[in-house]
Amino acid sequence: MALADEALELHRKYRGKIKVESKIPVKDKRDLSLVYTPGVAAPSEEIASRRELVYEYTAKGNLVAVVTNGTAVLGLGNIGPEAALPVMEGKAVLFKTLAGVDAFPICLATSDPAEVVQAVKLLAPAFGGINLEDIAAPDCFFIEERLKEELDIPVFHDDQHGTAIVVGAALLNALKLTGRRPEEIKVVVIGAGAAGIAVTWLLHRLGVRHLLVCDREGILVPGRTSNPYKEAVAKLTNPEGKAGNLAEALRGADVLIGLSRGGIVSPEMVAGMAPNPIVFALANPEPEIRPELARQAGAAVIATGRSDYPNQVNNALAFPGVFRGALDVRAREINEAMKLAAVKAIAELVEDLRPDYIIPDPFDPRVVPAVARAVAEAARQTGVARI
Amino acid sequence: MALADEALELHRKYRGKIKVESKIPVKDKRDLSLVYTPGVAAPSEEIASRRELVYEYTAKGNLVAVVTNGTAVLGLGNIGPEAALPVMEGKAVLFKTLAGVDAFPICLATSDPAEVVQAVKLLAPAFGGINLEDIAAPDCFFIEERLKEELDIPVFHDDQHGTAIVVGAALLNALKLTGRRPEEIKVVVIGAGAAGIAVTWLLHRLGVRHLLVCDREGILVPGRTSNPYKEAVAKLTNPEGKAGNLAEALRGADVLIGLSRGGIVSPEMVAGMAPNPIVFALANPEPEIRPELARQAGAAVIATGRSDYPNQVNNALAFPGVFRGALDVRAREINEAMKLAAVKAIAELVEDLRPDYIIPDPFDPRVVPAVARAVAEAARQTGVARI
Repeated sequence: MALADEALELHRKYRGKIKVESKIPVKDKRDLSLVYTPGVAAPSEEIASRRELVYEYTAKGNLVAVVTNGTAVLGLGNIGPEAALPVMEGKAVLFKTLAGVDAFPICLATSDPAEVVQAVKLLAPAFGGINLEDIAAPDCFFIEERLKEELDIPVFHDDQHGTAIVVGAALLNALKLTGRRPEEIKVVVIGAGAAGIAVTWLLHRLGVRHLLVCDREGILVPGRTSNPYKEAVAKLTNPEGKAGNLAEALRGADVLIGLSRGGIVSPEMVAGMAPNPIVFALANPEPEIRPELARQAGAAVIATGRSDYPNQVNNALAFPGVFRGALDVRAREINEAMKLAAVKAIAELVEDLRPDYIIPDPFDPRVVPAVARAVAEAARQTGVARI
Repeated sequence: MALADEALELHRKYRGKIKVESKIPVKDKRDLSLVYTPGVAAPSEEIASRRELVYEYTAKGNLVAVVTNGTAVLGLGNIGPEAALPVMEGKAVLFKTLAGVDAFPICLATSDPAEVVQAVKLLAPAFGGINLEDIAAPDCFFIEERLKEELDIPVFHDDQHGTAIVVGAALLNALKLTGRRPEEIKVVVIGAGAAGIAVTWLLHRLGVRHLLVCDREGILVPGRTSNPYKEAVAKLTNPEGKAGNLAEALRGADVLIGLSRGGIVSPEMVAGMAPNPIVFALANPEPEIRPELARQAGAAVIATGRSDYPNQVNNALAFPGVFRGALDVRAREINEAMKLAAVKAIAELVEDLRPDYIIPDPFDPRVVPAVARAVAEAARQTGVARI
């Protein structure tokens, strides 16, 4: 059966993918009086007297809201909150299966970013963390920024930071493999959406100094756009205002990171890069350039977003462990140090580096514990851990 | 161990009472590609093309949001959203245990009723129903009214309607037992909060024509209050504007329904009622009058809200079956016909009526299926069922 048909049948059979279960059996009136009135008054009163006790007496500490407004779902675009729900349930399944995190979909019926911020602020008390998902750029930046200011629990836009962490880990290993250092390489990021912008910032933090970002109109140049997030990236990466198209940007570059759309990179562009270039063609389902063609054009290390090629850059390597670690120490936020700790933890799991093995498999059982440990430790060191 | 200590220990041990689980095992990349990208695109696209399919491909159809803002939690008052969480989790446990309904706590950090309405409107797409809980009167009336207008899924404020349904069922059986008819009895409702007001409206619908409602200041008289919900009830029950205190209201009454606070009814007040009066003293944990005292004062049938006396008026008799029935037919709302159907279904389950057995036990396994069947049938007959 084709994948799509099998997926439809599976979703119909189970009526969705998640369920809410009681942790405590309730068989008689005594049980009832403990989990509900009158017994439940005791934990409620304790929390009323000291709010932090909500972590002791409720599910909050292991619970993440997977929040979307359905404006940028997979490659499908703005399909709305109902149509986004299968994806959010899938995310919740991965959270539970990979990291034991209880995750619950919140699909908001609004494309107004201020309304998203307001709704999430209001419903935050019962959650230990907020995973933002599939919200269109540039609203996703505004929403995450505002929520990070307003809330004292981790807020993490996975399309940005999950992607950036895994790209960062894969790049560190690709550099090691090809004998390069972050400071000396030239990187071109294709795509200035959520992922492209977050990857750019993270690579800069990893020490990359020669970065160019291209969107549909070519190299991002300061002053070209009214989008403040693109403008900030343009100033960071291209202060001297070098203009040009994608082919010009790629000429002599060591690394191409595609976070845009299928087929827009030609073999000639790869051939025009520096010797032994690194090509991450991450657009899904169709990469910016097919791995076969990139290899023929001289690429030394190739990664994609697909599971049917080696080196799949899969967010599932990052978000389960990142939240596991943040929740384990009741972190107030997920900060830059915690993200960098995740990058390094993922990269270090690959011991026998090869061109077709620069990142672990998402089902590698070492991934979540290693990432969680590193993230928790970074939270403690930066003073954002509550325990 | 005292109940409170045992409850604290239980809540601490399990870290709350609910968890989110996957219905589908995910063991390898193939499973991953079905529950998440790329397979999940298929159900998302189906729903994008026809929104009703969200009931086929997601958990929405069996999922109820248990929504509070923590302003009127149990007898504890306005303790806030975090402290309300143990109660909402308990409610979710009852939904699942008694009726197989997936229920999830939404604790909102606002005491502004318009903000509650807005947040629930925004998050409604992923839910099949909304159970409002422990929201202070009169905001609870406004919130429920507005959400019923705005949403096409059931909205049900359990403190109002759950209580009203069970009181209605108990009263029908108490009348049968004492040879009275709704049309001829005099009823005094004590308490003009969420429960008192909803009970009054429901009794009126059941045919009761002689009703008086008392709040702290005595009998509700039209024109006395600026609260529009109390005013409407005053006009319904007391158009001729009879004034007086509680003792005066009760003189000659057949039925007392206390939904107020402990100890405010004296044996003399009960002795002044009609012969063989019916006394429902439902305040918790301390009833308006202790059953022993009510019996000595002549009460023929007595009910309380407590599990340690006979005839416990427990909302758990209503809400699980009401939502089970509404979800089973994908009802657009829970209307008056559905509530009355629930009243009758609960009442009819008691075949061997006795003064100490006028309502079923909440764990009676016949209750949820009987209520669900009656509610679903009423939904179909009133044209609010989708299937």
